[in-house]
Amino acid sequence: MLMSKIFAYGIRQDEEPFLKKWAGQHPEVTLDYTDQLLTPATAKLAAGADGVVVYQQLDYTPEVLQALADLGITKMSLRNVGIDNIALDKAKELDFTITNVPVYSPNAIAEHAAIQTARILRQTKVMDEKVAKGDLRWAPTIGREVRDQTVGIIGAGHIGQVYMKIMEGFGAKVIAYDLRKKPFLEEQGYYVDSLDDLYAQADVISLHVPAIKETTNMINDETIAKMKDDAVLVNVSRGALVDTDAVIRALDSGKLYGFVLDTYEDEVGIFNQDWTGAEFPDARLNDLIHRPNVLVTPHTAFYTTHAVRNMVDKALDNNLAMVTGKQPATPVEF
Amino acid sequence: MLMSKIFAYGIRQDEEPFLKKWAGQHPEVTLDYTDQLLTPATAKLAAGADGVVVYQQLDYTPEVLQALADLGITKMSLRNVGIDNIALDKAKELDFTITNVPVYSPNAIAEHAAIQTARILRQTKVMDEKVAKGDLRWAPTIGREVRDQTVGIIGAGHIGQVYMKIMEGFGAKVIAYDLRKKPFLEEQGYYVDSLDDLYAQADVISLHVPAIKETTNMINDETIAKMKDDAVLVNVSRGALVDTDAVIRALDSGKLYGFVLDTYEDEVGIFNQDWTGAEFPDARLNDLIHRPNVLVTPHTAFYTTHAVRNMVDKALDNNLAMVTGKQPATPVEF
Ligand SMILES: NC(=O)c1ccc[n+]([C@@H]2O[C@H](COP(=O)([O-])OP(=O)(O)OC[C@H]3O[C@@H](n4cnc5c(N)ncnc54)[C@H](O)[C@@H]3O)[C@@H](O)[C@H]2O)c1
Ligand SMILES: NC(=O)c1ccc[n+]([C@@H]2O[C@H](COP(=O)([O-])OP(=O)(O)OC[C@H]3O[C@@H](n4cnc5c(N)ncnc54)[C@H](O)[C@@H]3O)[C@@H](O)[C@H]2O)c1
Repeated sequence: MLMSKIFAYGIRQDEEPFLKKWAGQHPEVTLDYTDQLLTPATAKLAAGADGVVVYQQLDYTPEVLQALADLGITKMSLRNVGIDNIALDKAKELDFTITNVPVYSPNAIAEHAAIQTARILRQTKVMDEKVAKGDLRWAPTIGREVRDQTVGIIGAGHIGQVYMKIMEGFGAKVIAYDLRKKPFLEEQGYYVDSLDDLYAQADVISLHVPAIKETTNMINDETIAKMKDDAVLVNVSRGALVDTDAVIRALDSGKLYGFVLDTYEDEVGIFNQDWTGAEFPDARLNDLIHRPNVLVTPHTAFYTTHAVRNMVDKALDNNLAMVTGKQPATPVEF
Repeated sequence: MLMSKIFAYGIRQDEEPFLKKWAGQHPEVTLDYTDQLLTPATAKLAAGADGVVVYQQLDYTPEVLQALADLGITKMSLRNVGIDNIALDKAKELDFTITNVPVYSPNAIAEHAAIQTARILRQTKVMDEKVAKGDLRWAPTIGREVRDQTVGIIGAGHIGQVYMKIMEGFGAKVIAYDLRKKPFLEEQGYYVDSLDDLYAQADVISLHVPAIKETTNMINDETIAKMKDDAVLVNVSRGALVDTDAVIRALDSGKLYGFVLDTYEDEVGIFNQDWTGAEFPDARLNDLIHRPNVLVTPHTAFYTTHAVRNMVDKALDNNLAMVTGKQPATPVEF
């Protein structure tokens, strides 16, 4: 049997068990890995490998791609979706083939959105802080039941649809707006005709659309004004969808009851960093973090064992397909 | 039209809007109220009323019942379930008729249990604390998806059944144990045959049984040993169901992944009090409150606008029925 050799970069502790499990199921592959990221300096760690598996915010520069190519490695599998940090022109010039993992667990993100939504309605942040300091009185920290809400989803795609199911499990009324209506959802009567209809009816508004020109800052002073009083806004999709200053104005005025944020306009360079002991780099975000009716998480909605297992497995499957001359499941076109 | 007069005690701010709404819908009733509790001293506030509506942890003593009877008032409607703090012998002697509100919102409790369950799986307490101090790194705070869990419900009654639906909305596998099997649940294949079967299969175990002799300390060293490693235990029912020391041992050993507590063996006199600035009265509870994988709430699962509205409405409906000589919906037998 011809052994394939795959080398993986930036392997975190939580990924290791899944990597080892995959290796155990693939005795025909020699799998080595490091916790270091892929750089011109670390490229040589992959020497002898047929392909590499990667995941990093750090740029895949022309230099690093050249360093891999110099080792004869041009098959690269991302464990994530995004390709914005790859020098694609250089990759093309060097004849790279690249795969990504476009869908690893819609449920990871939808569950997070649902949990945070319910927590805002329930005022858990206020109650948690009371309990932590020994104030065990319940009043006035009263909850709104999820079942009493009309939940409006903007973008009923992979993630939005799972979120809809969860909210229905709670007994909420669910409505949706989407540019492209799916027939099976239309039959079941989920769709409203316009965003204005959704804003007029929804107690909870959750965004599940991509960030594109048409959706940039779709939540702004004007659209918030169309919402019901005491609406809850949920954004676990992309920071750019929301005019954060407008949301803060609506929180201050009491128009919005609460805000869930897992993605933030200015998150790059701030999220997934440790700022303890340093000056926090964003005063506006710091203010949001400490509001009782705002729940901030640093783009962690995806971060579940299920998602990580899929990211590892699918990236390795893709890479193995490429290095054995087969068609990978999810190649990146560029 | 003959006007009825009802007087309500211990009305909290969050109850007031519902009280006023009910009054608006009942022009034939003169409804007065106070935020004070019913005591021998405050009984006279009800003078002239045909009936009283009450809710308090404070005892309904023989004296206070006598004081009401001296005013000709013997129709008393509780806004809650429990009657343990009523001097029932005296009430009988004075010919009182009493109503309670046995079911006000199973969803309030079930939603709370579901939210807290999902939060333990997601490690939100750890992540919230990281974010609050500026540590925005996601690893190693990884979540377990609800959909990947087998959720075992002990007691599939009013509350347990709603909790089951919510967990299924997330996509979890749900199993149940109940002393009395409901045919429609049996047909759908939810029941396991024994508690041992449930402990062997469940990743999450949620208690929804009453506290009676047979269920007292049903969760103890022996039954915890039968559970899967990394199980999550949820008790929003009654403190007495759980041997708290055994749970703490299992948290310390790592056998249990997390613990949700809304009810506590020694809660009387501790919950619904403000201990800030005073010495916290229970070292064990204080320890639990500050663990990263334990979520403590002070018997607030019931505390939603939906539940409070029902408690107010149903108690007033009951009282009005009694004072107009009709049969109230939920009389207390004693
Ligand atoms: N927080 C996280 O960790 C995380 C992880 C993955 C994805 N996301 C984000 O979640 C969002 C949804 O992802 P998905 O996988 O469900 O995508 P998807 O492509 O499956 O669904 C998107 C939906 O939005 C609809 N849509 C597109 N443009 C629209 C417009 N202008 N108006 C209305 N609807 C429009 C599409 O028709 C589709 O139904 C994306 O923004 C993605 O970046 C966040
Ligand atoms: N935390 C709160 O705020 C709050 C509020 C209300 C009720 N509760 C508690 O929630 C629990 C459930 O309430 P509910 O309204 O659903 O009750 P319920 O009577 O509707 O359901 C209880 C179920 O338990 C079953 N059962 C009884 N004894 C059993 C045993 N020994 N073994 C197995 N099953 C048994 C019954 O058959 C029934 O299906 C109760 O303990 C109640 O005190 C808590």
